[in-house]
Amino acid sequence: MKFIRVNMSDKTIAVEDVPQSYLGLGGRGLTSIMINTEVPPRCDPLGPENKLIFAPGLLTGTSLVNTSRISVGAKSPLTGTIKESNAGGTIAAALGRLGITAVIVEGQAAPEELFLLRIDEKGRAALLPAGAFKGMRTYALTEKLLETYGDKASVMCIGPAGEYGLKAASIQTSDIDGRPCRAAGRGGLGAVMGSKGLKALVVDQRGSSPDALADPETFKESAKAFAKAVREHPFSGQLLPNLGTAGLVAPVNAMGAFPSYNATKGTMDGWEKISGEAMTQLISERKGNPSHMGCAQCIVHCSNIYNDKDGKYLTSSLEYETIWAMGGMTGIDNLDTIARLDFLCDDIGLDTMSTGVAVAVAMDAGYKKFGDGEAAIELIEEIAQGTDMGRVLGNGPTAVGQHFNHHRVPVVKGQSIAAYDPRAMQGNAVTYATSPMGADHSAGNVIGEYMAQKLDPLKREGQVEASRNTQIAMAAVDCTGLCLLASFALTTPEGGMAFLQAMNAKFGTQLGPEAIPQLGLRVLQAEREFNRKAGFTNQDDRLPEFFYKEPLPPHNTVVVMTGEDMDGTFNF
Amino acid sequence: MKFIRVNMSDKTIAVEDVPQSYLGLGGRGLTSIMINTEVPPRCDPLGPENKLIFAPGLLTGTSLVNTSRISVGAKSPLTGTIKESNAGGTIAAALGRLGITAVIVEGQAAPEELFLLRIDEKGRAALLPAGAFKGMRTYALTEKLLETYGDKASVMCIGPAGEYGLKAASIQTSDIDGRPCRAAGRGGLGAVMGSKGLKALVVDQRGSSPDALADPETFKESAKAFAKAVREHPFSGQLLPNLGTAGLVAPVNAMGAFPSYNATKGTMDGWEKISGEAMTQLISERKGNPSHMGCAQCIVHCSNIYNDKDGKYLTSSLEYETIWAMGGMTGIDNLDTIARLDFLCDDIGLDTMSTGVAVAVAMDAGYKKFGDGEAAIELIEEIAQGTDMGRVLGNGPTAVGQHFNHHRVPVVKGQSIAAYDPRAMQGNAVTYATSPMGADHSAGNVIGEYMAQKLDPLKREGQVEASRNTQIAMAAVDCTGLCLLASFALTTPEGGMAFLQAMNAKFGTQLGPEAIPQLGLRVLQAEREFNRKAGFTNQDDRLPEFFYKEPLPPHNTVVVMTGEDMDGTFNF
Repeated sequence: MKFIRVNMSDKTIAVEDVPQSYLGLGGRGLTSIMINTEVPPRCDPLGPENKLIFAPGLLTGTSLVNTSRISVGAKSPLTGTIKESNAGGTIAAALGRLGITAVIVEGQAAPEELFLLRIDEKGRAALLPAGAFKGMRTYALTEKLLETYGDKASVMCIGPAGEYGLKAASIQTSDIDGRPCRAAGRGGLGAVMGSKGLKALVVDQRGSSPDALADPETFKESAKAFAKAVREHPFSGQLLPNLGTAGLVAPVNAMGAFPSYNATKGTMDGWEKISGEAMTQLISERKGNPSHMGCAQCIVHCSNIYNDKDGKYLTSSLEYETIWAMGGMTGIDNLDTIARLDFLCDDIGLDTMSTGVAVAVAMDAGYKKFGDGEAAIELIEEIAQGTDMGRVLGNGPTAVGQHFNHHRVPVVKGQSIAAYDPRAMQGNAVTYATSPMGADHSAGNVIGEYMAQKLDPLKREGQVEASRNTQIAMAAVDCTGLCLLASFALTTPEGGMAFLQAMNAKFGTQLGPEAIPQLGLRVLQAEREFNRKAGFTNQDDRLPEFFYKEPLPPHNTVVVMTGEDMDGTFNF
Repeated sequence: MKFIRVNMSDKTIAVEDVPQSYLGLGGRGLTSIMINTEVPPRCDPLGPENKLIFAPGLLTGTSLVNTSRISVGAKSPLTGTIKESNAGGTIAAALGRLGITAVIVEGQAAPEELFLLRIDEKGRAALLPAGAFKGMRTYALTEKLLETYGDKASVMCIGPAGEYGLKAASIQTSDIDGRPCRAAGRGGLGAVMGSKGLKALVVDQRGSSPDALADPETFKESAKAFAKAVREHPFSGQLLPNLGTAGLVAPVNAMGAFPSYNATKGTMDGWEKISGEAMTQLISERKGNPSHMGCAQCIVHCSNIYNDKDGKYLTSSLEYETIWAMGGMTGIDNLDTIARLDFLCDDIGLDTMSTGVAVAVAMDAGYKKFGDGEAAIELIEEIAQGTDMGRVLGNGPTAVGQHFNHHRVPVVKGQSIAAYDPRAMQGNAVTYATSPMGADHSAGNVIGEYMAQKLDPLKREGQVEASRNTQIAMAAVDCTGLCLLASFALTTPEGGMAFLQAMNAKFGTQLGPEAIPQLGLRVLQAEREFNRKAGFTNQDDRLPEFFYKEPLPPHNTVVVMTGEDMDGTFNF
């Protein structure tokens, strides 16, 4: 349990004990509570007062499966709110094995300076000049860094987009194979990393000083039981290993909730061509890997390796939200083009979702034609080149809407919605509007309720409760390092019990089941407090007008959730 | 007393009696109360639900001097708030002579349609196709319209910027000489006009059906007394006729309150070269007119006609705020270049202030060098051409700051400050932060208090009261059609009394002096109510952070007004 605090202004690195007030926190809980405590809410997100915090989860670094998420927190330049964006890969586990609770990046290097932060297998940290890597894209950079620091290193880094300070800039992180295909994509945190003058964080995976377990035997047992629960859940045990998250393309289109052509339709013409089924078949034919282990300790294998028609690597970890943003929203029904766009975003360091939606808004405004894949590729190359239009696109959908004076911009607090139209999934309307993170599906996706047919997605009834409960649960899950795709196992009695037992066995506590939602509430309260101090009010917890006015085919419904519904969501 | 309501969706024009609830209102009072009543606060400012209202003041069309201001109101695409932007020229008087209380433009024409609204000497209105004028700049357009409709017509129109829907787009209006050099510049209302599909409003000046005066004899007497008060006030009787508003360059630089080089200094190097004194001398040498009557019934003559070194027309009505934005903020110390930039903005239909500050932010971000006049001219031509960079600039300083990821953007609610740095004039900090219009000097400029040495501009004491009282007074003045430059006469006992007597003589009322602030309060309350319903809160009534953090030379002070000061400004 230790903090590594790096001051980019004076280049000092302090290793400190975790202060009392932060003890027992990890992942999103730690980043959010720390930001609410230490970052001036009205500061410039790209100025020296903001802090960029990397925190593995509470259970990361243990033997528990699928606990390799890293939370990255800061005040977001995209939304102006507090933000936690989390990513898979291997770096969280690497930090966990070193007993590092968080890496906190403070201050700001001079404008032309660029550094990387290296943490070696003993947990020793050093700031090293990285001027030679200026402007480098993430695949080339990661390859170079692994050459230098060995293939037992994990990398988090930014591409040109983050260096430019663009609001759709991601932080990419390396997967099991050392490819920077996993991303803390949302909220423009790559721009915060760029503003600090930090190009990369490189952590050795061979640490052997993880935090001790209070009760190793019980931990081992519960870890085994939890793994079983993950394997036995139909979502994490069957759908995801077979089709990846892309398995959602078919059901969400069937539900008429797949925002297409910049959210003017709820079903995409030809969605079958970009479905999980089509992708799995194509990947198999081309000798890629449709069920790839992307993250340390993953047993779900939702990832993939996608080759082109000649069997050459195109991208890894092509996911549902990317297929939607780059396919459904833009009307591009060619998986190879979508895979190429995914690779380009990873390589340039861009959130595929914000970027895809930005392109879709530009198409809707008449700048390019829906479905024009070549145009989309050129536009994204423009972002890397830093042209004027590239900057507009790289600042996300709001900037594009303003640029073209186009009213249909599907964002909340500046951040694009995800692949679930709020008009056809009213509970996600509530999450998009009220999440302290802007429109963010991972903050409380209600789709599980609809797929289990527990709730009618089109009716007002029950949506506020469903969104509230999911947001609370996700806030807790995001503290633990557990992947949200494996977290479905928590909804079974065995899985929930095993997970709680593992927590207690690690910390020597006797937490009951109520401890999980309590943790979620604490995190959400801190996040909302920060946002209030930053100037946000309930009036910001609203969707853009067109969602209330323009009916979405095929159901031809609009958002029916009222302002009072939104205001009543956080009733604690 | 009648309304002309024009529906751009179905092209209907209705002439209606002024409804009971709007009786007794004019200018800003009418536009703001009407918008608060009729426009959905959360509507898209460039969508069909917004309304664009042209309203002469309560005394416009009478013989009272300097009452030829027209108020233009709408929800602003720049600030998102309610907005009244007023302009001089001749069109307000033309409407007044026709007994037209307001022209209300509603709905929205189809995207490719373009119309002009003509009102003839009998007050008959017609929507005429204006597709032939698409993309035309305002000087050529106005010339063409006056050719067609006769030189006894007054014009309000937009240039390419308004057609593009840019947030810095102005509505230009013709002066006494038929030149479109006067502007309702602030708030991007030119974009609203463009969004409606309305290129121009043409009103015949030969109307002879003004609203009747209740007591013509008393009116005549009080009009005479008021004119005397205007002539005898040192500001409106001496400084303005001699130097124009540019007479403020010297004293505001002396006060260290002239925001220069994108508000990094409070005094501009070489300000003497762009002062009122220098301008008057230059204009005289070149046989221009340094004391020109720009507006109908004006006896102040703050306007000018500015010729180039060969005696050829360069621009008219070159004013203090333009000289500041295009000179001080950009570091351009050449009056001919500033005059050219002024002309270009008028011709393209751009607010000189937002545009100048947008260029200054781009320079500060390193895109061009401070002081580079040729670069500034090229950038503004780019706005007319609609290039990507042109669109960024034409959307104002906030868009430029975002584009270049530059933190120093001197705006409130998206609208640029004016030529009084809030760090050296703390009362204007309060006005910028709290005005329902965004940073807007004309909503409550406290400079009069400082020049009269009634208040120390650097100290916290007395500023809130000074801003509050000035904002209330200006809200009332803006209802009457009176030019704010002539309104200094209201502060003398004779002037105040004469003006009140004229109001009573027109309306047959017995209003006491308290009626004026009461009117101002009523207007501000309606405006603030609209903004609250649109989602604004007290947290929006703040300046950007750098004003609190970066001391301004030469006083090296920051804004000392607190959040509580701002929140306590409207204590009614």
